[in-house]
Amino acid sequence: MITAKLIDTVWATRKAESLNGLKFMLAEVIGGSNEGQRLIVVDIISAGIGDRVIITTGSSARRMLGDDSIPVDACVVGIIDEDCKFK
Amino acid sequence: MITAKLIDTVWATRKAESLNGLKFMLAEVIGGSNEGQRLIVVDIISAGIGDRVIITTGSSARRMLGDDSIPVDACVVGIIDEDCKFK
Amino acid sequence: MITAKLIDTVWATRKAESLNGLKFMLAEVIGGSNEGQRLIVVDIISAGIGDRVIITTGSSARRMLGDDSIPVDACVVGIIDEDCKFK
Amino acid sequence: MITAKLIDTVWATRKAESLNGLKFMLAEVIGGSNEGQRLIVVDIISAGIGDRVIITTGSSARRMLGDDSIPVDACVVGIIDEDCKFK
Amino acid sequence: MITAKLIDTVWATRKAESLNGLKFMLAEVIGGSNEGQRLIVVDIISAGIGDRVIITTGSSARRMLGDDSIPVDACVVGIIDEDCKFK
Repeated sequence: MITAKLIDTVWATRKAESLNGLKFMLAEVIGGSNEGQRLIVVDIISAGIGDRVIITTGSSARRMLGDDSIPVDACVVGIIDEDCKFK
Repeated sequence: MITAKLIDTVWATRKAESLNGLKFMLAEVIGGSNEGQRLIVVDIISAGIGDRVIITTGSSARRMLGDDSIPVDACVVGIIDEDCKFK
Repeated sequence: MITAKLIDTVWATRKAESLNGLKFMLAEVIGGSNEGQRLIVVDIISAGIGDRVIITTGSSARRMLGDDSIPVDACVVGIIDEDCKFK
Repeated sequence: MITAKLIDTVWATRKAESLNGLKFMLAEVIGGSNEGQRLIVVDIISAGIGDRVIITTGSSARRMLGDDSIPVDACVVGIIDEDCKFK
Repeated sequence: MITAKLIDTVWATRKAESLNGLKFMLAEVIGGSNEGQRLIVVDIISAGIGDRVIITTGSSARRMLGDDSIPVDACVVGIIDEDCKFK
């Protein structure tokens, strides 16, 4: 999984019907040599801008949504505790 | 998912039969440390050159086409609103 | 999908039985910040050295072969038209 | 698979329900040109900080958990022997 | 697929039970802009250190083992002929 910080919300009025109601956020990788890489993620656990999150990508991201037919490849699966300081 | 800008159309007369009728476009990643990376995507929601789009890759891209047998690994799943300014 | 140029043929006499009869080619990514990256692809649509092709990777590549049990993760799915000039 | 060193534990109280009880660790790639890249992995074989481990990613990581519905894309599948010196 | 050279054997006594009996090797990517990247692969076709091999990654790697439940994401699928000189 990826450690990233949520930095903004992304709005797309025109999109696949199955994506209606999902919240899309812009995330930026933190730590390691991939720092600064960006991706768009779906959040269904009420994460907010500024949160450090754990992101699952690929086919495993669809498991987060409980519906294998949704064309999503990255989801927030956890919010890292604020007092969790990792290297 | 990836944030990218559609920059051109790609034509391939000789291709897998299951790809007939699909529109292939060249997309360039915007933002983050992967900026400038390019990939070819299939668009079925009438996106156009210059649009900023959300792209889903991997097995999830096949979910956008509603046919799991098509050899496609990247699809436009949403068009980012023109007035959406994200960092 | 990836845009690449086929640059050579690769021969492997000793290989998985299910790969017998498949043509393996060396491809080099063209355009974007991944330019120069190389991968081996299977071609079943008679592409040749020098052709610019569209390559599908991952589980979607197996869809090109119509047999989900073959251990292949990259296939040529289209040959870009010679007169197609993209940026 | 990836060779990495476990460098810390990651705590996320708020997360997908199916992730309850799983141990998340921060791993850093060792060796090769990807050295220094970081990812979060699930460990179910009692690896500890400092251990060099083999990490499986993608859909194959779910095979380690024996439950295909868990949104995890990276797992420790082996602990490299302490006396194993590889280049 | 990836072209790589096998450079060493990796030993992990403590590992997932389903991995018992499999041979793990350290491979280094050759050619292209990913040259020098390293990964651990499973070999079941008797490749040896020094061999140049074709490696399949992701879900397709599990097809090489003929058992979809094994948590492996990279396998040697072919040994490149010694007299095969590619660019």
